[in-house]
Amino acid sequence: MNDGTSTADETAEITRAIPELELLSDDALDAIEAAADTILQEVGVNFVNNPEALERWRRAGAEIEGERVRLPRGLARELCATAPGVFTQLARNPARSVEIGGRGLVLAPVYGPPFVHDAGRGQRYATIEDFRNFVKLGQTARWLHHSGGTVCEPTDLPVNKRHLDMLHAHMTLSDKPFMGTATEPSRARHCIEMCGILFGEDVVREKTVMTSLITIGSPLTFDDTMTGALEIYAAHNQSCILAPFAVVGATTPGSVAGTLAQLLAEVLAGAAYAQLVRKGAPVIFGPFVTTMDRHGGGTGFGTPAASQITYGAGQLARRLGLPYRAGGALTGARLPDAQAAYESAASLNDGLLSGANFMLHACGWLEGGLVSSYEKFVMDADRLGVLHGFAGGVEAGLDDALDALREVGPGGHFLGREPEMAGGWQSDIFDNRPFEAWIEDGGRDAMKLATERVRDLLESYEPPALDPAIDEALSAFVAAKKAEMPDSFM
Amino acid sequence: MNDGTSTADETAEITRAIPELELLSDDALDAIEAAADTILQEVGVNFVNNPEALERWRRAGAEIEGERVRLPRGLARELCATAPGVFTQLARNPARSVEIGGRGLVLAPVYGPPFVHDAGRGQRYATIEDFRNFVKLGQTARWLHHSGGTVCEPTDLPVNKRHLDMLHAHMTLSDKPFMGTATEPSRARHCIEMCGILFGEDVVREKTVMTSLITIGSPLTFDDTMTGALEIYAAHNQSCILAPFAVVGATTPGSVAGTLAQLLAEVLAGAAYAQLVRKGAPVIFGPFVTTMDRHGGGTGFGTPAASQITYGAGQLARRLGLPYRAGGALTGARLPDAQAAYESAASLNDGLLSGANFMLHACGWLEGGLVSSYEKFVMDADRLGVLHGFAGGVEAGLDDALDALREVGPGGHFLGREPEMAGGWQSDIFDNRPFEAWIEDGGRDAMKLATERVRDLLESYEPPALDPAIDEALSAFVAAKKAEMPDSFM
Repeated sequence: MNDGTSTADETAEITRAIPELELLSDDALDAIEAAADTILQEVGVNFVNNPEALERWRRAGAEIEGERVRLPRGLARELCATAPGVFTQLARNPARSVEIGGRGLVLAPVYGPPFVHDAGRGQRYATIEDFRNFVKLGQTARWLHHSGGTVCEPTDLPVNKRHLDMLHAHMTLSDKPFMGTATEPSRARHCIEMCGILFGEDVVREKTVMTSLITIGSPLTFDDTMTGALEIYAAHNQSCILAPFAVVGATTPGSVAGTLAQLLAEVLAGAAYAQLVRKGAPVIFGPFVTTMDRHGGGTGFGTPAASQITYGAGQLARRLGLPYRAGGALTGARLPDAQAAYESAASLNDGLLSGANFMLHACGWLEGGLVSSYEKFVMDADRLGVLHGFAGGVEAGLDDALDALREVGPGGHFLGREPEMAGGWQSDIFDNRPFEAWIEDGGRDAMKLATERVRDLLESYEPPALDPAIDEALSAFVAAKKAEMPDSFM
Repeated sequence: MNDGTSTADETAEITRAIPELELLSDDALDAIEAAADTILQEVGVNFVNNPEALERWRRAGAEIEGERVRLPRGLARELCATAPGVFTQLARNPARSVEIGGRGLVLAPVYGPPFVHDAGRGQRYATIEDFRNFVKLGQTARWLHHSGGTVCEPTDLPVNKRHLDMLHAHMTLSDKPFMGTATEPSRARHCIEMCGILFGEDVVREKTVMTSLITIGSPLTFDDTMTGALEIYAAHNQSCILAPFAVVGATTPGSVAGTLAQLLAEVLAGAAYAQLVRKGAPVIFGPFVTTMDRHGGGTGFGTPAASQITYGAGQLARRLGLPYRAGGALTGARLPDAQAAYESAASLNDGLLSGANFMLHACGWLEGGLVSSYEKFVMDADRLGVLHGFAGGVEAGLDDALDALREVGPGGHFLGREPEMAGGWQSDIFDNRPFEAWIEDGGRDAMKLATERVRDLLESYEPPALDPAIDEALSAFVAAKKAEMPDSFM
């Protein structure tokens, strides 16, 4: 159900019954699309250290000069036509498989931070234990549809092996769909092999079972690591979020329209390239957008420019016919305080109303992406129910209301008319009880309530059942791969 | 300017260059409008203890039964046709006069609370000193266009006289437009007289110099106090916000559509009645909306249902041709913490995207309207710059960006290209500096930063210049009225 009411196993992605906010005019979007074509034609993109990629492009009709790839006007969009507008990512629990694209919105947790924060211990380096905790919290999060990927970076494990334990955690502690690793092509291959164990190799051959985050180096640069991972996933029909990293005014021009043109060019190039690797490879139009903080050189979130870009990029994605990734509970705050919440609520809302089909960082993000926060994870996860409720739209039907008004009349009230009071989202953490009741109960602020919520969820967590043979095979695979290589922390 | 950049005297209301989110379909809105007509025709509204009102209605063609007024279908909408779709409210500083309606959005502070809160002293009864402090904070708030009304209730002053000191504070400590009192008709008359002193009586006869909040008793009840104030203001061409008090499922039916139909009926009746008092009286379609908190019986804010109603009511207001009041930085939280900010950011955004032309409670509101919070006032006021920035829309023009991309190329960066990095909203309170810099500076959370901001603003506050003759005449009027009556605290 999409009205935001709670049922224990409510996990289907949001299906929008509401319109998007179409912020930019058609003329403005036409101009941006024309500019993107100009960028690809005149400036081009670099495919670094990847002769095979250059050859693919040459065969497709691009002009190659060193590592520079220039595309004739319209070529990228034409190639993108074979990318699906909507596709399904399987979860090991079929009820939790998600549709990505169309009217759907899939919510996934924070991705990437090397630090974690909790009220008790403050800020510290993230470990595999934290990683497992966040996967557990994600599994219990009623409004979260996806287990995500690098919910934090397990810095206590060797860099060249941590992806094995990370994927193992997603596969065993959660039955929601998850992400693959994109740090190195051989690791992407391991992920696909592990999926073969979990789902069956024939399933993995036919279906999409992973979505991975491919960062595009703005401006206009496809490095070999990310592109290598993209190639492997695309070849195996696994989906990729094409994520230019836009810091407005630093890695993109300082204007909203200029940024949109560059992002479109970058995604067009990446999506077209994926089709050259394999026609029909699922890709997601997924820029990450932040603005420069002029005070201290950090990055800003929940700002007007970032919002405007989010809406505009959604419009461009729909015109291109690709699923769209945007939004998240983004903030530059160092604590899960009011600043964090103002900024996060703004970017969550941007994601919803811009038509995002996939939202990474929907819970747990803190300090510009450096920190995964326990308290913020549960507070954000709680607020995601608001997106569900609002996206479900407004029920038609006025007969009950008219009857009620005829009965109740002026000066009456509607309390106790049970059928009409059903439903409607409410927080599982916060309440609006009177001051006295709240004081009697300890006068706990948002942080304290969130700390308790974290503790309660982790204590009551139970892993979803997994076929013991698969469990064993996964553990064996992980152990074997670890044994094959020496540890590396670089 | 509307791009969110800061200039010292930036006070013009927001002018939207962005579309509204049209949440409900035309069919749904047609059905709601038909239902509102049915409600007015079959159920009607009560005008309590007001025979003159009943007589006005009878002459206009309504069916009167006791205190019940039933309107033939279409009558209310027809009468509303003389209400202006946009009007100007004068400020004593002409540069700060505001346009209410059309594409504009006027932001006004919290209204009504009997308590205040600050980090130092916690929660306590509000006093006239607090009232004056909030008016000063409002005067310094760059993104606030309106001084508001009952920014808190000065509980240390007699009930029958406090309106005099309240209006005096708005008139002397601020040069922004302000609100009149609506607690009792004779007090409304005092407000008009004081405006005559401030603006000149001929100005007050011709122009709108006050906007006041008229609460409509949902369901469908016009009490004599509020209606009496409405009659005085309308007769003097001063504007009124018609504010049904909707607690969904308690004072309205438990459905979004049903609530919208009732609110529309109530506003139609109020707006039509104001036209019967004086054709052309400016009125604002301004329901206050909250939802029931089933946990403890309090009221909820930032919920999906409240948001949906906010958007739907905006659409109905535009179809009716009246200015629309909605939104605010609303929350049920007892502290200015993350809960407060999540909820407030959501309702601020609702106000912006629903097309609100006037937004009360845009800063300072806490605990369901019981508390005016110092820290929240400055934090909310800071965030209002985001609304300004987003509403300004996206600049067209891509030539600079294309030139920059041609020069910078793949792998380059745009830093230092000054003309392109100009502008863009940034917080005056929060920053996104790195953790180490933040820790060195004391690791202050949002609350601490806000406390310092309050102190700095109040310390640097300077009253706007006022003609000494007017100043003296206002003081004399206040003293005289106080002397005329014994104190009453009821």
